[in-house]
Amino acid sequence: MTTTVHAYAAPTAGASLEPFEYDLPDLGAHDVDIDVEHCGICHSDLSMLDNEWGMSQFPFVAGHEAAGRVRAVGEHVTHLQPGDRVGLGWHSGYCNACMQCLSGDHNMCAGSSATIVGRHGGFADVVRAQAMSVVKLPDGVESSKAGPLFCGGITVFNPLVQLGLSPLDEVAVVGIGGLGHMALAFCRAWGCHVTAFTSPSKMEEAKSLGAHETISNRDPEAIKQCRGRFDLILSTVNVKLDWNEYIEALKPRGTLHVLGAVLEPLDIAAFPLLMQQRSVSGSPVGSPATIARMLDFSARHSIAPTTEHFPMSRVNDAFEHLRSGNARYRIVLDRD
Amino acid sequence: MTTTVHAYAAPTAGASLEPFEYDLPDLGAHDVDIDVEHCGICHSDLSMLDNEWGMSQFPFVAGHEAAGRVRAVGEHVTHLQPGDRVGLGWHSGYCNACMQCLSGDHNMCAGSSATIVGRHGGFADVVRAQAMSVVKLPDGVESSKAGPLFCGGITVFNPLVQLGLSPLDEVAVVGIGGLGHMALAFCRAWGCHVTAFTSPSKMEEAKSLGAHETISNRDPEAIKQCRGRFDLILSTVNVKLDWNEYIEALKPRGTLHVLGAVLEPLDIAAFPLLMQQRSVSGSPVGSPATIARMLDFSARHSIAPTTEHFPMSRVNDAFEHLRSGNARYRIVLDRD
Repeated sequence: MTTTVHAYAAPTAGASLEPFEYDLPDLGAHDVDIDVEHCGICHSDLSMLDNEWGMSQFPFVAGHEAAGRVRAVGEHVTHLQPGDRVGLGWHSGYCNACMQCLSGDHNMCAGSSATIVGRHGGFADVVRAQAMSVVKLPDGVESSKAGPLFCGGITVFNPLVQLGLSPLDEVAVVGIGGLGHMALAFCRAWGCHVTAFTSPSKMEEAKSLGAHETISNRDPEAIKQCRGRFDLILSTVNVKLDWNEYIEALKPRGTLHVLGAVLEPLDIAAFPLLMQQRSVSGSPVGSPATIARMLDFSARHSIAPTTEHFPMSRVNDAFEHLRSGNARYRIVLDRD
Repeated sequence: MTTTVHAYAAPTAGASLEPFEYDLPDLGAHDVDIDVEHCGICHSDLSMLDNEWGMSQFPFVAGHEAAGRVRAVGEHVTHLQPGDRVGLGWHSGYCNACMQCLSGDHNMCAGSSATIVGRHGGFADVVRAQAMSVVKLPDGVESSKAGPLFCGGITVFNPLVQLGLSPLDEVAVVGIGGLGHMALAFCRAWGCHVTAFTSPSKMEEAKSLGAHETISNRDPEAIKQCRGRFDLILSTVNVKLDWNEYIEALKPRGTLHVLGAVLEPLDIAAFPLLMQQRSVSGSPVGSPATIARMLDFSARHSIAPTTEHFPMSRVNDAFEHLRSGNARYRIVLDRD
């Protein structure tokens, strides 16, 4: 029986999205179809819509922060069944056989597929994915708030796991937007002392989101006052910062972890790394296991993204709102 | 009783060293005097002689890779006694009270003193240091070969400990000189697969020093053939490399660890860090505990630097040889 998907697609780069239907082939043995109830919008949806990375295919159906219920499962799928509440993020499949997959690092599988690259994403009533990339939502994580955890959320949660963050650590989050506002909540619940570097207009709200302290990112002197202070600085911005000032703000053994896709090279002075055993690192989203742990942690600590909602039929308004830079802090499309 | 030290000192920046005598004050309660039998020459002795870093004081007595026997101990020194075979490296004292010292990271103590900064070093018959910075030589580490372990050796050994190198890891060492040739031996004994990036003239010898494989660092295509291959790249050179090619040569989770004091900023592209959870880091020498572990490891694996020896009275010839770039691989001055 053919499944016809009712989606929203951009016919060309940067164009408005229009209703778009396509038929799915027979369900693969390891795949699932998800009835999409909610789908977050991520800045990378916008980059792909505008074909900034030169890898978009049109008609283009964005959406890689989908939450909903399993509609159908392939014959070899054992860990999901129809009706399960689930989410789907950046990756829609893995090779499941390479060293990365075998080591639990599916998010770095070279043979992975991405939900909106060369295939159609979650701005639709149905989205298909390999079952291994689909993670069940625990009780305590609302479907309407779950989507943004699957890309923005896991991007900031994953480094806390990978870097072995300790509750004894002092953390700074640079940039309080879609990613940063979740980072504040995670790091606060992790037991750390949390500082937000943000614009003056967001300082009060940053505290309500989890920051113990806020520092203006518009004041070049402010960062200089923080020498040797932080164990971890998570940068969620995608513009060039004065990286060496942030590195000087690290303690011995401290790490500047970059999550924003900055295009300009990081111009890092070697000496401050050497003398204090500091490092600069980065990481991509997270594996299914880490996503599952994030969801449990979020449920246990009542962490959810701050969201603004649009009906999916108003997807173009939602994109405009994202482009304006005024989203507070993550936009979710709800099924009409 | 006054101790008169017979040293070699440069009266001004870049000058030849001349015999130089000075009197030591009474021995401090936590200090020891060492009868210097051998002292390695490190490239940083040359940088300090030339006052490259603007912190040299003249007359300048270089030498921070000293090995010999304890001559006298202060009244509160409990772990050393006269006659003990010992070594002294870059640091000649620590505050012993800061978070770094209390955590075993004495090598990052902000209140540490350096053997040749603002005080006189080991090109002398006697050198004084705080006992905490002096480490006993185990049986199996020859005094005549021990000096270079205390600066060059620990600089490359320390990151293996700090980064938790596994024998399952594939390591590359860039630059086979004073530091790099010891890195090859340590990494080989650590159980890793070891690749040397070096000049064609050193390739054969790099294998005898511990490399399983050698790759020319003069061939820009060669590094491109190594995509995704190494868990750790140790760079011991102090010139700018095509850092992003070396980062692309790292596996997921791989680390480029920089030990050479490169002056130009590292121009690191953010994307290859992000996508594969890679990092760029650095580290300084090592703590007394890590030095002691290195010495035991060296004894157990019969690891010693490859050294060329000059009598201390020929210190100027030794410096000339170091300046020529032809040292193979570490120069040691022996007491006349």
